Amino acid sequence: MHTLTIIASNHTYPIYIGRGLLANQALLNQYIVGNQVFVVTNETVAKLYLPLFLTNFDGKQCDYIVLPDGEAYKNIANWSKIIDALMSKKHRRSTTIIALGGGVIGDLTGFAAACYQRGVNFLQIPTTLLAQVDSSIGGKTAVNHPDAKNMIGAFYPPQAVIIDIDALKTLPKRELAAGYAEIIKHALIADPEFFAWLEKNQQQLLNLEADSLEKAILRSCEIKAAIVGRDEFEQGERAFLNFGHTFAHALEALTGYNTLLHGEAVAIGMVMACRLSVELGYISPTMTERVLALLSALDLPVSLPVVCSIEQIVNEMQHDKKATDAGLRFIVLEQLGKAKIVENISTQQVRTILKT
Amino acid sequence: MHTLTIIASNHTYPIYIGRGLLANQALLNQYIVGNQVFVVTNETVAKLYLPLFLTNFDGKQCDYIVLPDGEAYKNIANWSKIIDALMSKKHRRSTTIIALGGGVIGDLTGFAAACYQRGVNFLQIPTTLLAQVDSSIGGKTAVNHPDAKNMIGAFYPPQAVIIDIDALKTLPKRELAAGYAEIIKHALIADPEFFAWLEKNQQQLLNLEADSLEKAILRSCEIKAAIVGRDEFEQGERAFLNFGHTFAHALEALTGYNTLLHGEAVAIGMVMACRLSVELGYISPTMTERVLALLSALDLPVSLPVVCSIEQIVNEMQHDKKATDAGLRFIVLEQLGKAKIVENISTQQVRTILKT
Repeated sequence: MHTLTIIASNHTYPIYIGRGLLANQALLNQYIVGNQVFVVTNETVAKLYLPLFLTNFDGKQCDYIVLPDGEAYKNIANWSKIIDALMSKKHRRSTTIIALGGGVIGDLTGFAAACYQRGVNFLQIPTTLLAQVDSSIGGKTAVNHPDAKNMIGAFYPPQAVIIDIDALKTLPKRELAAGYAEIIKHALIADPEFFAWLEKNQQQLLNLEADSLEKAILRSCEIKAAIVGRDEFEQGERAFLNFGHTFAHALEALTGYNTLLHGEAVAIGMVMACRLSVELGYISPTMTERVLALLSALDLPVSLPVVCSIEQIVNEMQHDKKATDAGLRFIVLEQLGKAKIVENISTQQVRTILKT
Repeated sequence: MHTLTIIASNHTYPIYIGRGLLANQALLNQYIVGNQVFVVTNETVAKLYLPLFLTNFDGKQCDYIVLPDGEAYKNIANWSKIIDALMSKKHRRSTTIIALGGGVIGDLTGFAAACYQRGVNFLQIPTTLLAQVDSSIGGKTAVNHPDAKNMIGAFYPPQAVIIDIDALKTLPKRELAAGYAEIIKHALIADPEFFAWLEKNQQQLLNLEADSLEKAILRSCEIKAAIVGRDEFEQGERAFLNFGHTFAHALEALTGYNTLLHGEAVAIGMVMACRLSVELGYISPTMTERVLALLSALDLPVSLPVVCSIEQIVNEMQHDKKATDAGLRFIVLEQLGKAKIVENISTQQVRTILKT
């Protein structure tokens, strides 16, 4: 088991990466403070893991809620359902809320934990690759607004993140690929050697080869942990993690959060962000081609969905949290392994990129 | 103008106390960072102050929402309305949200500011006495759950609290009295001389005599600012500010948040908490009588509403955020000016107090 540490403003917390952790009773119970536990999960994960997982907390008051699976359910209605369930089971301030699932469950549960009684203990147990390498780390929690993604939320770091690599054995291939998109993002913005390693090991990763997978997860978590440790509240470099995301969020909103997986939207968004980086004179077209090749090799989409018109995408991006008073804001690559914030990008420039 | 300073974990912020501050354009604009302002207020305050207040921000994008007046509206539905309005007017992360109103507006707006885009700039401009001396100070924001008060919220300190004493000229007498309840609470838990001063100056306070009112507000804010500065997240002494509140929250919930004002419920709750302090052997019955006399003199209720049965109150208190795994928890007076947390109080003990 590997242990990483994240320094947040109010507390420091560990990320554990290993095998069999979903059944590691001693480790899990170390983070249950009171005698109440509340597990939030979805229908898919519940079938596979919930009954066994709950036995970790025998002897405690242990309640749970099973939500439908999918980004479309990351909304205020389901957040309210979690709060209502906590209330009806009389969970107190000393309760521990556990997110057992992917990024949707993690974000939604974290936001419920942040708000219930102004904040209760919270454990992240991500079961998808995307959640393990990205969304469970760094304390961002949120739900979507009908008009834009992650518009309502909180910075609320968990007490611990517990990553069980074994959980990936049951993950559909499409979701695995979506996770690789964020791993590639971390390599692109922070570590050229890691990017080259990913290019070289793409086949092993597709085959879920144990050592390669573990290395990819560990390195990805290290990169993200270091960035959010230095910039928890996104005053500076944390914004680099949004590489590809301005485009991605617009695509997800326009397709109703039920067509593209988040990682798939990020893959397309990273291709667009690479093109913008070329357009602004930072990287060469060859770099975009390498990114495109790696994403394709890992079965990720690389071009805009036909249902989204360029005008719709541009309009949607103006809602983005990263839009400033002066114009659109993007993260681009200055070079492989080095990201940069660019501001005041005109809608005309964006149209050009999208038309490529 | 007096200035106090509160030290919160992520930033330090000022409380300004003075006259004419609602029209102090220079002071107000010092806290508007971007070019967008969003004012949240209620129907009562809007009629009196909104049109003039908005002129402070000429030249900026200034939007507002006017909500119905009353504790019954401090809920998720109105919180969502604020978020929806921010979205539809395309407010960005650099916007500043202003709460112009009493405790309900402050709590609701603060929670919206905490959650919109994971937190935007926020100004508290309390216009009731209760909000000026208590709820606007210390960063607690929340909405009520149908089953209990303040169950959903965040610790989210504002950028500044701006207290205009002139706003109290239009405050109904009943709401003024409700504010005095919290002032008396601050004296009871922290400052025996201030309590004696309040006893001596009750007539001046009822008559809104300028100097007495200013002194009462300033001293009350000083006491609260000092406590929350030392214990922002209620790990210890901040809980003392809940003196009378375990009883009060139950009474408010049982009367549907529309019969008793919060300060009125606190007045009744403080009488009960004094009786519990006597029952536990800390203070003498004479002290309870002094508290009862001062509250009555300031036109505050001191006995349980007839509509609430003792069993209903006891059952309701078990929902309280301050309930622990082991039993009910209360704040009592060890002596005048010194509060204490007592735990594991049995429901039987509570019944005895309520029957007195």
